[in-house]
Amino acid sequence: MIEDKNPQRTSLSELGEFGLIEHLTKDFKITRKSTVKGVGDDAAVLDFKNRKTVVTNDLLVEGVHFDLAYVPLKHLGYKAVIVNLSDIYAMNATATQITVSIAVSNRFPLEALEELYGGIALACELYDVDMIGGDTTSSNKGLFISVTAIGEAKNEDLVYRNGAKSNDLLVVSGDLGGAYMGLQVLEREKEVFKVNSNNQPDLSMYTYIIERQLKPEARKDIPVLLKELGVKPTSMIDISDGLSSEILHLCKQSGVGCNLYEDKIPLDPQVISASEEFDINSTMVALSGGEDYELLFTIAQSDYPKIKGNPHLTVIGHMTPENEGMHLITRANTKIPLKARGWNALKEE
Amino acid sequence: MIEDKNPQRTSLSELGEFGLIEHLTKDFKITRKSTVKGVGDDAAVLDFKNRKTVVTNDLLVEGVHFDLAYVPLKHLGYKAVIVNLSDIYAMNATATQITVSIAVSNRFPLEALEELYGGIALACELYDVDMIGGDTTSSNKGLFISVTAIGEAKNEDLVYRNGAKSNDLLVVSGDLGGAYMGLQVLEREKEVFKVNSNNQPDLSMYTYIIERQLKPEARKDIPVLLKELGVKPTSMIDISDGLSSEILHLCKQSGVGCNLYEDKIPLDPQVISASEEFDINSTMVALSGGEDYELLFTIAQSDYPKIKGNPHLTVIGHMTPENEGMHLITRANTKIPLKARGWNALKEE
Repeated sequence: MIEDKNPQRTSLSELGEFGLIEHLTKDFKITRKSTVKGVGDDAAVLDFKNRKTVVTNDLLVEGVHFDLAYVPLKHLGYKAVIVNLSDIYAMNATATQITVSIAVSNRFPLEALEELYGGIALACELYDVDMIGGDTTSSNKGLFISVTAIGEAKNEDLVYRNGAKSNDLLVVSGDLGGAYMGLQVLEREKEVFKVNSNNQPDLSMYTYIIERQLKPEARKDIPVLLKELGVKPTSMIDISDGLSSEILHLCKQSGVGCNLYEDKIPLDPQVISASEEFDINSTMVALSGGEDYELLFTIAQSDYPKIKGNPHLTVIGHMTPENEGMHLITRANTKIPLKARGWNALKEE
Repeated sequence: MIEDKNPQRTSLSELGEFGLIEHLTKDFKITRKSTVKGVGDDAAVLDFKNRKTVVTNDLLVEGVHFDLAYVPLKHLGYKAVIVNLSDIYAMNATATQITVSIAVSNRFPLEALEELYGGIALACELYDVDMIGGDTTSSNKGLFISVTAIGEAKNEDLVYRNGAKSNDLLVVSGDLGGAYMGLQVLEREKEVFKVNSNNQPDLSMYTYIIERQLKPEARKDIPVLLKELGVKPTSMIDISDGLSSEILHLCKQSGVGCNLYEDKIPLDPQVISASEEFDINSTMVALSGGEDYELLFTIAQSDYPKIKGNPHLTVIGHMTPENEGMHLITRANTKIPLKARGWNALKEE
């Protein structure tokens, strides 16, 4: 993808740091009322008036969070923004601005960074956030992307992780496990490609799960939907590490237990078929796969009629007193303890 | 400094990501009224009421911005915070919060990260800022530190880079060139150490300039001082890349020219003596050395009596109409064009 033989290859050193920043940021437009001053000064200036400011930051590292062998740079830029916006939405807030800092080795030509910033710009446009600053520097090896996302919310709208009560319903948006199974497909194709680089894989039966991995979306729509439905969650978190890990965060911070029902976990048919093909338990994929960027939240039982039947939302369990612990109720109706598992745990299965 | 034989060496993998974040952040205290929620949720929540929010971000890369052969990790953590706070003060604002994200290879034991966070905590304490979040992840090689600094200011107090007018005076805080000459000393000692590791260098005559390099301070006091003096700068920037580069930024963004007087540039005696020892022109060091983190600003001529004689401030030139260009007036009273030069340019001399 980024090979030396590429005729359109402009060396980063030709531009210099300031030239590079100017070049990469010149097409970003400021549209948010709260952005007083964007790129170009020592710092950006924002005005949230009587609202609270919400801030989050994530660092994405080549070889750890992404593999440029199968992640196009434009998708990577898009995803780097999305994973941060997801944290803002998980506060029931509106995302308004981002800063982007990158460290890049000189093996990347300017055209590669233009691709990366093209993805960032697309995410900014679609999610209506302003890019207001950052830093561009060199690295000895690899690509590092640090994104800070900023948002705003009225105080009474903010939802933290620590407000879940016993008997609250546990609800998730969308479906789970797609991003992890998409990664499995991509990693398999990478191995096939190593053996036979002329191989043109037919990935048409995996389009949904590959897109979930390469071009995830953040649930900007869910805080809006909940407001329309008149529902304020009692606690909320986004699913970056996997369902079980996120449930444990909500339980620990809220001081409650949980019963999660295996048969309620929403799975796309492609996740089910790919899980069978790779001989992985699809429930394990949902519990530990991560990177779905769906929202997981709890609501009071009295709010159930308001969300009932909504195609975006699925009730997957309920909270319990803390001393009852955290459990998965299996399809066979056995009760097994929920453990935090990340991808590593899944790979060790 | 971070050798395998160290008996106090706890592997990062023993803790896991969440354990590591919890361990490293548990001693950080929240003291700012504007911090509603710090570490521990999807995002931090801040409340700036009727003030503007100021945001900046910098990424520090091992081998590019620092060399662990002579930078102790505690100093590095401290400096990573300082360079960002400096950008907030350069807006004439008050720094209030930071987020810190690090990517680290597994060659670093927990104790090394504790040192790093010790330096971050010290900077937070001395500069009265809250650490409110961030990310901790692994890297395949090297250490990367991304800091976002957040501040606040009344709208009428904010100072941008673009407000300088012709005839305004150009003023700098403190003295210049120390950080660069400190680096020269440290790099020489590193080479000596490679040849003879038993050598115990006597660095007592370089203490000030070494401290300027290893433990720089941000000029938190200057916005406060200016307020006390009743002076609002017309433009301001911090000196991270070197005096000439920063002057060019102010001129370009304000649409003015500048005359800078060589004999007015404030230099510490250690900078002068070390420049002689290393056979470098001390004016070049001030112009291109960078990393001094002093503040450079312009004021109206009518404000001159208010700053006259202040030991923290030196008038080093004045702004001119844009068409007159940017010049250095040398001690020999010749006028030479000012060019942006960074460290690379200096090394090529």
